[in-house]
Amino acid sequence: MNTLLLSLLASGASLGYGAFLIWGVMKKSPGDEKMVAIQKAIQDGAAAYLKRQNRTVFFVGIVAVLILWKWLGFPIAVGFVVGAVASALAGYIGMMIAVRANGRVAEEAKHGLARAFSMGFKGGAVTGFFVVGLALLSLTGFYWWSGDVKSLIGLGFGASLISVFARLGGGIFTKGADVGADLVGKVEAGIPEDDPRNPAVIADQVGDNVSDCAGMAADVFETYVVSALSVMLLGSLLFNNEPSIVEFPLMIGALGIFASIIGSLFVRLTPTNSAGQAGGIMAALYKGLGATAVILVGLFYWITQNTTIGKNGGMALFWMLVIGIAVTALMVLVTDYYTSKKFSPVKKIAKASTTGHGTNIIAGLAVSMESTALPVIVIAGAMFLAYSMGELYGIALATMSMLSLTGLILAIDSFGPITDNAGGIAEMAGLPKEVREHTDALDAVGNTTKAVTKGYAIASAGLAAMVLFSAYTQELSEFGRTVVFELSDIRVLMGLFIGGMMPYLFGSLAMQSVGKAAGAVVDEVRRQFREIAGIMEGTAKPDYSTAVDIVTKAALREMIMPALIPIIFPIAVGFILGPEALGGLLVGVIVTGLFVAISMTSGGAAWDNAKKYIEDGNYGGKGSDAHKAAVTGDTVGDPYKDTAGPAINPMIKVANIVALLIARFL
Amino acid sequence: MNTLLLSLLASGASLGYGAFLIWGVMKKSPGDEKMVAIQKAIQDGAAAYLKRQNRTVFFVGIVAVLILWKWLGFPIAVGFVVGAVASALAGYIGMMIAVRANGRVAEEAKHGLARAFSMGFKGGAVTGFFVVGLALLSLTGFYWWSGDVKSLIGLGFGASLISVFARLGGGIFTKGADVGADLVGKVEAGIPEDDPRNPAVIADQVGDNVSDCAGMAADVFETYVVSALSVMLLGSLLFNNEPSIVEFPLMIGALGIFASIIGSLFVRLTPTNSAGQAGGIMAALYKGLGATAVILVGLFYWITQNTTIGKNGGMALFWMLVIGIAVTALMVLVTDYYTSKKFSPVKKIAKASTTGHGTNIIAGLAVSMESTALPVIVIAGAMFLAYSMGELYGIALATMSMLSLTGLILAIDSFGPITDNAGGIAEMAGLPKEVREHTDALDAVGNTTKAVTKGYAIASAGLAAMVLFSAYTQELSEFGRTVVFELSDIRVLMGLFIGGMMPYLFGSLAMQSVGKAAGAVVDEVRRQFREIAGIMEGTAKPDYSTAVDIVTKAALREMIMPALIPIIFPIAVGFILGPEALGGLLVGVIVTGLFVAISMTSGGAAWDNAKKYIEDGNYGGKGSDAHKAAVTGDTVGDPYKDTAGPAINPMIKVANIVALLIARFL
Repeated sequence: MNTLLLSLLASGASLGYGAFLIWGVMKKSPGDEKMVAIQKAIQDGAAAYLKRQNRTVFFVGIVAVLILWKWLGFPIAVGFVVGAVASALAGYIGMMIAVRANGRVAEEAKHGLARAFSMGFKGGAVTGFFVVGLALLSLTGFYWWSGDVKSLIGLGFGASLISVFARLGGGIFTKGADVGADLVGKVEAGIPEDDPRNPAVIADQVGDNVSDCAGMAADVFETYVVSALSVMLLGSLLFNNEPSIVEFPLMIGALGIFASIIGSLFVRLTPTNSAGQAGGIMAALYKGLGATAVILVGLFYWITQNTTIGKNGGMALFWMLVIGIAVTALMVLVTDYYTSKKFSPVKKIAKASTTGHGTNIIAGLAVSMESTALPVIVIAGAMFLAYSMGELYGIALATMSMLSLTGLILAIDSFGPITDNAGGIAEMAGLPKEVREHTDALDAVGNTTKAVTKGYAIASAGLAAMVLFSAYTQELSEFGRTVVFELSDIRVLMGLFIGGMMPYLFGSLAMQSVGKAAGAVVDEVRRQFREIAGIMEGTAKPDYSTAVDIVTKAALREMIMPALIPIIFPIAVGFILGPEALGGLLVGVIVTGLFVAISMTSGGAAWDNAKKYIEDGNYGGKGSDAHKAAVTGDTVGDPYKDTAGPAINPMIKVANIVALLIARFL
Repeated sequence: MNTLLLSLLASGASLGYGAFLIWGVMKKSPGDEKMVAIQKAIQDGAAAYLKRQNRTVFFVGIVAVLILWKWLGFPIAVGFVVGAVASALAGYIGMMIAVRANGRVAEEAKHGLARAFSMGFKGGAVTGFFVVGLALLSLTGFYWWSGDVKSLIGLGFGASLISVFARLGGGIFTKGADVGADLVGKVEAGIPEDDPRNPAVIADQVGDNVSDCAGMAADVFETYVVSALSVMLLGSLLFNNEPSIVEFPLMIGALGIFASIIGSLFVRLTPTNSAGQAGGIMAALYKGLGATAVILVGLFYWITQNTTIGKNGGMALFWMLVIGIAVTALMVLVTDYYTSKKFSPVKKIAKASTTGHGTNIIAGLAVSMESTALPVIVIAGAMFLAYSMGELYGIALATMSMLSLTGLILAIDSFGPITDNAGGIAEMAGLPKEVREHTDALDAVGNTTKAVTKGYAIASAGLAAMVLFSAYTQELSEFGRTVVFELSDIRVLMGLFIGGMMPYLFGSLAMQSVGKAAGAVVDEVRRQFREIAGIMEGTAKPDYSTAVDIVTKAALREMIMPALIPIIFPIAVGFILGPEALGGLLVGVIVTGLFVAISMTSGGAAWDNAKKYIEDGNYGGKGSDAHKAAVTGDTVGDPYKDTAGPAINPMIKVANIVALLIARFL
């Protein structure tokens, strides 16, 4: 069967399944009038933010398109537009369904945990299947149209650039609003989280959607597109542009979609495990992932028996693909260990909270640093095994197989923010206490699932970046420059140091941006408390939209500077210090980027869950001194896990793609 | 003139000058009876700790000696013993004078700031000149005896191993005692810092001495010895063991000592700047450093005109040496910027403290990450310039020239803990308020000078590690293995990742160890408050020595695990994955090690000074909410800047030396 047709069919199936899930979400009641009004406010705020973010990025995009067109030709420029538009679209659709699912989860929670769970997962699955569907569709469609695998780099560049902006802008928005709302609301005014009297409460909810839904969707779309294209590109460079090899990654992607659709049917909260325990909820989600993985391994085996490329590859091909699935499974286990309330790292942080704010932070930083070791060993081990079976292309295939699980991984991930916001809406709409209890039970696993996706994304980014680095090397030699990247070459070493610096600088800027945005929110909330009489008594409504507007402006202003780092540094180093230094830079940014990103995303989630662990009644529970210290840790973890950490993933890829694009001019 | 004789002469001058300074310290009054009793308690605790630390390390050392002797021959084993003993001795002497100078600074402070300053600097200079004197003496003497530059690796290994243990053990001790004492004393019991009613107060003072004096001295001794020997080794490998080139680094070291002795005479607090302002005190210290640098540059020029090797090297040689001085100057400026109360990074952290504990930490982490960028650019730039003038040996010469300033840098550094402890003694002995004001004024610059030395040590470690890496490459080829370290070699990449992981794992373990030691102190202090009636009323004396004993045991137990990382990882990677992977590991540990170390040492000092900035009366001053948040930041910064961060420096070197030692077996 024609691979491209199969791939288009799978994309269609994914989008169709997503549409079917949308129908399943929309047919349910959005709740009472008050809930609808709240959802409307969040929807409007989120849509308005995304519109302004896209407008800002549009101007950057225009410049990029013109430069690409002039220097690299029309197809690459078109690819850039397709990638950017599809990425923005993926984020937009995912978010628009998420904001609609939020209230419906709260409404369903009135009828029990199982129904709320089902609605939450459906909402999340919409994002999951739309993102992979759009990603595979744009890859296949564009490749079919251009007939040129190299132009796909443009597609990847468009997706990555949008993704960096979405991650940064969304991350600064959400954590600026969150930290700002908490600082004045919880700390100064002493009102609970999600209290409707807090003028920043809608901004906080909007933030969750633009970051955890739209930002995450753009990020995973980018991860998928860039990884797949790097595998296609490497196949083309290594195997003389042989179509069956170039198109093979698309086949893996297609099989992944079919497996994910079937696997998603296994996600169901049975009455026996609906006791509200996080274990049962997590198990229900993992069952779907496990089923998908098992089906995929079966399909991979089928390939090796029944397709020409499979027969040529034989069992080695099969095992390379299995490595990708194994990496996903191991990353899930490791991240779960470091971020779940069940295990010692989170418990250690909770215990350290009993001796104060400082010891909570010290314990959290120690966990965040330690949490890098096993993932890096997994990635290095996978690289080694895959390489020993199929050299560079082995690593590429493992990467692609890892990505084939994206649909279900992202569905599980998006489940988190949807149930989180459902709880927020229940709080604001004054729904009965058991509704909030149900949503809290669902949300409790959200931190871990979010951390798992980030771990998955960064691990695949590490592998994909390695593939991109090889593509860069190949590209240089294609343009007549045989460059050797030797560690004893001073230019390579300088590149390594400068590249290693980039995630640190990027992370620092992102953290500072959150601080600035939060500061702006604090000022505005204080102003409203001062100037609008009756807010605290509930007789006057706060001006939610001004708070949304202020944090929108702050996020858009602050996202520009860090986003330029992965563009300007590679260009400067490439043209000033040469291709050897640029190669060093690429490896440097991957090496420190992996550590900084993993430590931030896992560490942040561990801090958050340590707080939740105390809220479960340990060490004095809510309101105790230990809880206050744990809230501090959570505040620190917020920009770690939701702003700086996840944005490093697309940042690494942008740097690599920029290098690929300028390779011919060096 | 014979270089070895000149070098021995300089060593003798350094030790003689140190002895002269000791006489200057000891002839002054140690204060009243109460002060003497307190000093005695600190002295005894510190001596007891060092004795037990050395006993623990002794057993590790015996094993190392036997292994070295059997596999690498007698001279290397002897070198190990000389290096280990000299390093331990340097730490011991430095500390023993420091504990005696502490009380004398407090006593002199009764007679004004200028006299206290002079005593503090004299005490610090003893450590500075003893450390370089011993370092140059052991290098020269051992080289003379063995006649073999390769055996110097054993000397370096001994120094490095002692240094890792001293840094870790001392760092865990001091911060365990400090954090533990503060948690129960300041936070729970509400008594001020250094209050004699706190049972851990002596342990805290002992900790400052074993870490900031003994640990720092061992660390700098190691930095000096390992850097110098790597330069000598590289010269021998590159220039066919030509004696004038092998011995040239010793000449630079000798000139550095003469320049430092003269430069130290420029350090004087004049009446005009003795107004108690940190600016004046800092300027007085920097004047000495500046004078030393100017004299050295003059001497370097003299070399190029008047020695055979200088005439051969010409102006290129001169400029390579100047690069080392320039790196020192730039590192001082950059570290000063990021850690001094005068500039925006510290002020930003202080401002962020007004909105709570969480924002203080976020701002501090952002500063700590940002503070890595400029140093890395300085190091990479220096590498590039030095390489372009003299290839690998150019980098080596710049490293050696940088080190020639060690005597004065360490003198300025040791000034910090001495004045810090003088303040503690003044508090405990109930001296008049103006005494404490004088010591506080002196101590205020201590954080910055300590951070400066750490920045200097880590920068020189970065350069020295690069030189060691080249030596490893040369060593491999000498044993018939021509190994190319290519970034597209999967083994090199795996090594890079595993090496990159080491500082993260090491740092995490070190941070956790501080938490455990602090926990043990908390339990003991609580027990004493509970069981010894009358402590809080001042009618009963706390049992200081049990607290010292508990933290001693905790530190010695906790230092073993992290110290094994730089030994076990290189051996495992080298023998299992081969010399290519080991080369990658070495570069990986240097790259992430630099970032982790700089971010921790600069970030920690910035947190500490942000607290001091608020204590100066900004944002509500002592006791305000901002101050409480700043104390949290300081607590987090403590294990950052005093335990994990500085220990990474010798850790990097141990890994490199182990690689050098096992190279012939791979």
